[in-house]
Amino acid sequence: MLYAVILAGGVGSRFWPQSRQSFPKQFLSIGGERTLIQDTVDRLDGLVPPERVFVVTGTRYLDETRRQLPEVPEENLLAEPLARNTAPAIAFAAAHLYARDPDATLVVLPADHVVTSVSRFHEVLDAAIEQAQTPGALVTIGIAPTHPETGYGYLQFDGTVADAFEETPTAFPVLTFAEKPDLATAENFVDSGDFLWNAGMFVWRADSILDAVASYQPELDRAMRPFRTDVRAVLDVATVEDAFAASPKISIDYAVMERAEGQVFVVPGAFGWSDVGDWRAVYTLSEKDEQGNAVRGRVILQDSSRCHVAGNDRLVVLVGMNDAVVVDTDDALLILHREAAQQVKNVVDYLHANGLDQYV
Amino acid sequence: MLYAVILAGGVGSRFWPQSRQSFPKQFLSIGGERTLIQDTVDRLDGLVPPERVFVVTGTRYLDETRRQLPEVPEENLLAEPLARNTAPAIAFAAAHLYARDPDATLVVLPADHVVTSVSRFHEVLDAAIEQAQTPGALVTIGIAPTHPETGYGYLQFDGTVADAFEETPTAFPVLTFAEKPDLATAENFVDSGDFLWNAGMFVWRADSILDAVASYQPELDRAMRPFRTDVRAVLDVATVEDAFAASPKISIDYAVMERAEGQVFVVPGAFGWSDVGDWRAVYTLSEKDEQGNAVRGRVILQDSSRCHVAGNDRLVVLVGMNDAVVVDTDDALLILHREAAQQVKNVVDYLHANGLDQYV
Repeated sequence: MLYAVILAGGVGSRFWPQSRQSFPKQFLSIGGERTLIQDTVDRLDGLVPPERVFVVTGTRYLDETRRQLPEVPEENLLAEPLARNTAPAIAFAAAHLYARDPDATLVVLPADHVVTSVSRFHEVLDAAIEQAQTPGALVTIGIAPTHPETGYGYLQFDGTVADAFEETPTAFPVLTFAEKPDLATAENFVDSGDFLWNAGMFVWRADSILDAVASYQPELDRAMRPFRTDVRAVLDVATVEDAFAASPKISIDYAVMERAEGQVFVVPGAFGWSDVGDWRAVYTLSEKDEQGNAVRGRVILQDSSRCHVAGNDRLVVLVGMNDAVVVDTDDALLILHREAAQQVKNVVDYLHANGLDQYV
Repeated sequence: MLYAVILAGGVGSRFWPQSRQSFPKQFLSIGGERTLIQDTVDRLDGLVPPERVFVVTGTRYLDETRRQLPEVPEENLLAEPLARNTAPAIAFAAAHLYARDPDATLVVLPADHVVTSVSRFHEVLDAAIEQAQTPGALVTIGIAPTHPETGYGYLQFDGTVADAFEETPTAFPVLTFAEKPDLATAENFVDSGDFLWNAGMFVWRADSILDAVASYQPELDRAMRPFRTDVRAVLDVATVEDAFAASPKISIDYAVMERAEGQVFVVPGAFGWSDVGDWRAVYTLSEKDEQGNAVRGRVILQDSSRCHVAGNDRLVVLVGMNDAVVVDTDDALLILHREAAQQVKNVVDYLHANGLDQYV
């Protein structure tokens, strides 16, 4: 049976002040009515029904997750007591789903990405699901790069980027993984035509990923064993706490994918993907007026263009501004030149370092 | 005896959203602790004591005026039931002060200007007060222009701008008044060397200005007669309302000064004057950090320069911004490029025109 595992851990400090420690990015709506995590579940419609959608999230985010996803059964929300990066979260969910269904196939998706072509996304997942039935296969979704982005990891594969645009998506062997590159390297990757963005979306059978974890991360394998044999173990807070405390803090890429030579496949995809990494990305995805302004809330613009306003209750008036991002919240206001969008995370660091934690 | 008449009528829509209809510019503090109207009274220290300071202000502003100027006796606050521009306000105060003291000399000052050199300001006023003792003399203070400003009226005088910098200020005859000029004309005025800015500051005996009003504005003279003979008439609401209702809506320049040929004198002054006409002027007057930022409130700046933040209760964070003006209030937020400071009054017009009067 096919299941979805949604990874909803992130903090999203690049969306301060709208995202907070207590309200990370997946809970925000970007342009539309629905939030990113709601869109992530909606997007699976026709492929994985909500009763087979599982969400791994921090204990403190359980309430908001439950509120936003009423269609996902309560028992499908798996609480992480400690943030330990993606490998423990994935091993935890895989062990639990294996206990429920030893024949389970998992579609693993971040909770806070955007996809604009859902039908194409499904075609890509279909190809990945099919490939994942090969014993031991670990399948990732690779995004055809649109520019030499330095903020993503890349993977080189035995195919070409043009394959992402073929009518029927296909899986190809992955040759190598590459960490976030510098600009020159990123340009080489894009020019080479056989590098894709590593988007953190995976498809595998529960037994395949658990076997790989056992091979490459024996410590993690040991920590997560209890959930493999007992479907009720995830409900025991002490057991879950022990498991996460005993787990290394490591990403699934570094823990498994980069090591599982010969087992790793990629389906190249081109379906309007964005990881919505900062306010600039939100602007790109937003509807704009003729002057290129994207606004929400009660906003008045005079002689202003390419501005982006995420309003709150108050009236916001911009006069003579260009390329400004304004994010208004009850206790904090951010005014940002869009080119500096990546620096917002520095603000959060500054707040922490200066005893202003109440704003984080 | 010497009295001060402070004209505190203005609306100051160019300071929206900090100034409102219910809270005009004179009640704001610019940079310092004290508000503009408080500074105006403080600045008279050593020349006119608070018990001889009179304030003409709108009925709706009486409470705030009383709150900000506790040292000014209650009975010195003269309420204007209707805004009728400067001529009626001045004639009203002059008539009342004549009833109190037929020998009164009045220093008439706007409530919302800034002066940085108070000692020089006093020297200029001293010269004007002396000149005002000549029977019928109407004396104005003219500001040595620093640039071809198109937002002010000018006056041409029988002297040179250099006279403003003489050790002992002197009065000169005024030759002509000029309305707000276009830029080319303003440049000619400044180049000519015998034009001054008309700053709306006057010194005259009560009988001199009342005689001039009688000569050039008989209607206004008739309207304000009751206050000339009865010091208690200003307390009678109906009498005051009738007087203002019967008064023309006209400035003292247009009503009297431009007509009183041969009676008008000017003392040229250079004492760091500003009428603080818009947010740009406030920035110019504010203390700045090394990056040219002027901030009040809880503000964090990253990679930002020449920004101006008038904060409120909330945290305000600017990242990568230059030359931005941010004015935060409880119900409205303004973000302005400083070069567009003059356009703020258009925002107020827009609010009126669009049924958003609650924000005005």
